[in-house]
Amino acid sequence: MNGQRREGRFFEDFEIGQIIEHRYARTITEGDTAAYMTLTGDRFPAYCDREFAQRLGFRREIVNDLLVFNIVYGKSVPDISINALAHLGFADVEFEAPVYAGDTLRAVTHIIGKKEDSAGDAGTLYIHTRGLNQDRKTVVHFFRWMSIRKRDTATRTNEDEVLSFPRTADPARLFVPEDLRNAGVWSALETAPTFESYEPGQRIYHGPGLMIEEGESALATGLYQFTGAPYSDAFAATDRAADGRVVCGAHVISLARAASFNGFEGVVRILAWNSGVYPNPVYAGDTMYAFTDVLDTMPIAGRDDLGVLRLRLVAVKNEDPRGKVLKLEPHDEMNARGPYDATVVLDLDYYVLIGKDGVFGE
Amino acid sequence: MNGQRREGRFFEDFEIGQIIEHRYARTITEGDTAAYMTLTGDRFPAYCDREFAQRLGFRREIVNDLLVFNIVYGKSVPDISINALAHLGFADVEFEAPVYAGDTLRAVTHIIGKKEDSAGDAGTLYIHTRGLNQDRKTVVHFFRWMSIRKRDTATRTNEDEVLSFPRTADPARLFVPEDLRNAGVWSALETAPTFESYEPGQRIYHGPGLMIEEGESALATGLYQFTGAPYSDAFAATDRAADGRVVCGAHVISLARAASFNGFEGVVRILAWNSGVYPNPVYAGDTMYAFTDVLDTMPIAGRDDLGVLRLRLVAVKNEDPRGKVLKLEPHDEMNARGPYDATVVLDLDYYVLIGKDGVFGE
Amino acid sequence: MNGQRREGRFFEDFEIGQIIEHRYARTITEGDTAAYMTLTGDRFPAYCDREFAQRLGFRREIVNDLLVFNIVYGKSVPDISINALAHLGFADVEFEAPVYAGDTLRAVTHIIGKKEDSAGDAGTLYIHTRGLNQDRKTVVHFFRWMSIRKRDTATRTNEDEVLSFPRTADPARLFVPEDLRNAGVWSALETAPTFESYEPGQRIYHGPGLMIEEGESALATGLYQFTGAPYSDAFAATDRAADGRVVCGAHVISLARAASFNGFEGVVRILAWNSGVYPNPVYAGDTMYAFTDVLDTMPIAGRDDLGVLRLRLVAVKNEDPRGKVLKLEPHDEMNARGPYDATVVLDLDYYVLIGKDGVFGE
Repeated sequence: MNGQRREGRFFEDFEIGQIIEHRYARTITEGDTAAYMTLTGDRFPAYCDREFAQRLGFRREIVNDLLVFNIVYGKSVPDISINALAHLGFADVEFEAPVYAGDTLRAVTHIIGKKEDSAGDAGTLYIHTRGLNQDRKTVVHFFRWMSIRKRDTATRTNEDEVLSFPRTADPARLFVPEDLRNAGVWSALETAPTFESYEPGQRIYHGPGLMIEEGESALATGLYQFTGAPYSDAFAATDRAADGRVVCGAHVISLARAASFNGFEGVVRILAWNSGVYPNPVYAGDTMYAFTDVLDTMPIAGRDDLGVLRLRLVAVKNEDPRGKVLKLEPHDEMNARGPYDATVVLDLDYYVLIGKDGVFGE
Repeated sequence: MNGQRREGRFFEDFEIGQIIEHRYARTITEGDTAAYMTLTGDRFPAYCDREFAQRLGFRREIVNDLLVFNIVYGKSVPDISINALAHLGFADVEFEAPVYAGDTLRAVTHIIGKKEDSAGDAGTLYIHTRGLNQDRKTVVHFFRWMSIRKRDTATRTNEDEVLSFPRTADPARLFVPEDLRNAGVWSALETAPTFESYEPGQRIYHGPGLMIEEGESALATGLYQFTGAPYSDAFAATDRAADGRVVCGAHVISLARAASFNGFEGVVRILAWNSGVYPNPVYAGDTMYAFTDVLDTMPIAGRDDLGVLRLRLVAVKNEDPRGKVLKLEPHDEMNARGPYDATVVLDLDYYVLIGKDGVFGE
Repeated sequence: MNGQRREGRFFEDFEIGQIIEHRYARTITEGDTAAYMTLTGDRFPAYCDREFAQRLGFRREIVNDLLVFNIVYGKSVPDISINALAHLGFADVEFEAPVYAGDTLRAVTHIIGKKEDSAGDAGTLYIHTRGLNQDRKTVVHFFRWMSIRKRDTATRTNEDEVLSFPRTADPARLFVPEDLRNAGVWSALETAPTFESYEPGQRIYHGPGLMIEEGESALATGLYQFTGAPYSDAFAATDRAADGRVVCGAHVISLARAASFNGFEGVVRILAWNSGVYPNPVYAGDTMYAFTDVLDTMPIAGRDDLGVLRLRLVAVKNEDPRGKVLKLEPHDEMNARGPYDATVVLDLDYYVLIGKDGVFGE
């Protein structure tokens, strides 16, 4: 056994082109889905209503896309980010094959870029991670970059190469299964909002604030099998832990997305993210508020029953954003840490699938 | 999309005779059952012991009646009680078809009464909600009333009509499946209490107090997919939140019922409630104590293997009720908010099914 | 109904030779497994990776050995330890038939020893508990002793007899199913540690500290269906509750074992414990650190694909043990409460199964 593996890799331990097959897989069960709902209150029906999911053409209810994302992400943590100082960004996160309870997920990561910091004590690592099911079909893949500690801060590596990668998802490639259909699921119901309900420029607030408790983050990191000192160790001497218990980003994004059900009840699933950042940390005891800006409404070539919305989901802490003017990075550069207000804790630019009006299926 | 749906309906938005089919269903899984046990510590064997349940004649372990109730109730919240000021009462809650993991539940509500408050800023809404499984069989139905905000407090509606509805369950109609049997389940075991162990007038205390933690209520409302500001928003300017985090009533009743296992180990399931009220709120950090008064012991026509107990389950907070005299509303008027002691947090009048002595099945 | 059952048995209510069949069984589901992972962050692959488990020869992923242990233990609590003052020790805990989701577990306890305290107000009770699945196969069995209150402290019983029982597990009898194999599971993967990676005398630290939150213990005792005042009642006048909320030992051991994944990633399952003690209590808010001393590495007769490690898992609270000298009881006498440092909260001497190098299966 080498100590490196136990301590996690440092910046010097990665090289561009390297492929890391993460050792441990995870079988997702109905229990994981229930734990996710319990932690987040998520209510989107494709994830919890078997009848709804089956009428759309899924085999049964699908596993929440963000639970899939968080678990695939978690599989990479022991090999990638034990020595991460900060998560910096995600780009081009694409969801593909739906995941069902009983599927076994594993992850593979390609190292695509390294850039040593000018101070020499750390560097930015760029990776591409792919999550696969037991049939080796891709369920999600994404680009991610983060700041990683150097093992030897006295020796410069002078590394500064990042392979080209997309900063946003390509709307033309969004994964919409051919056998998915809008079989009148919405039209048959009273007033669920459809594709036609939205237009660019709308801002929709997602209900009351949500206080994040001590303990929630520990449960979330347990469910996702994350490991990492700042989330759990009150005695760890990191700046991040100085103000209290840092809530893991996976829980922040999951809570904000669950809150977005208020106003987007008709959404089927997430297709892709362009980008996602956590401009400021959330601590246990903070109250989180979320809203969505509708960025675009997009038809799907060859389909008159389903459409795509491009949305920007923003979460702020400890003040209700209604009626306030927030300083938000322009979304086309949002991957950089920018001039956000100190209250902004999440900025997610993403695509969702939604049914269209007046389509009655078989 | 109309704003009304997002903000929730106000008192003026309901009319007597209206039928609301709640849009979202929920597939209950083994995961939900495990989350419920984790949150409540429930130990009644029909819900967690497959062998016990099958010997009684159930297909397998059934889903906890209160989990079914809480989920059906939760399905109605977005359409009914987003603008509720206070829950006032339940009456004639009847449990019918047992629910199994994998069943998909939906809910339908009839509006049966409206009574504007004399102050004009709110009114009492009376409803009847029915929960159905995927075969459209009723799993639970109940009457409920609550105080709802008016949209326009300056304009009187002068509404004051409540359709007639039962204030208690009818013991003659309690749902006992014909294929359910007491196949010597209890008699074969050491000393589990049976129907014959109880008599009217007994008071049974349910063990130690139970401290309710920060975070429990948030997890419970996540599991039940409730939405509502007072449970989660530390910054919400409501009186109810002034003293701390209000614990949702569904968690209060679930914890008290789970505690009642100590003393009622032989109970199979809940058949019905006559009524249920939360006279005072519970806050995170409170310690809850529960006891049961046996109100009646009732045979079932044509059955010598099973009987019914009528019980009054009372929960108090922050003082052990043993040896104390509590001011409790007479139970025949208990639906009204009455002269309860400030420590009383639950008063539930309900019927349970229990096995009789000395019956040895096939 | 007798009051004794409700209050729990006292020291006088047990007799040597008595066999208590615990009344209530429990069907373990995928939901329980997910709740356990959420509470502990456990990542050992035999418990959560169906492909890994099946390649080893299991039918599917097995239920975590400690979840099985905790649930079997919990089944005995109402009949045995309602009036326990302190848990004193475990010895010869042996895990046998693997448990799968859907199995129904029940427990039987033999009373094997009683020793009245010299003060006369309590006594030590010695028991042997066996957990069985629905096919009546043993899944775990163990010896345990604890201090139990006397009902009548004024009357001496002068009892002092303890039947002979093993203080450690017999390595020659460790349960390794014949159809279990190391089908190249580890060798095919990058660098997972194998049997050959360890040698006696190694000390391996298990990563960052883990802060235990308010509420975690309540959830754990809910999942395991424990009952007991010190874990839940802030108003209970027991010494144990004086410093805050005591975390149940089952949660302490589960968290420490989950943390031990860092350094023992290749372990398949727990085979047996020699002994386990909780020298000092853990309170909500404490931060726990764990490390393992490798005590022995042992071949298995007739098997060249799998081996056994004897490990000592130690957990301490509120100070990082790295570089510190801890006062630890010699492990051959560790069942007694000994001269441990006040920070030591767990001392577990146990055997695990692990794959050997270079074995490629079919």
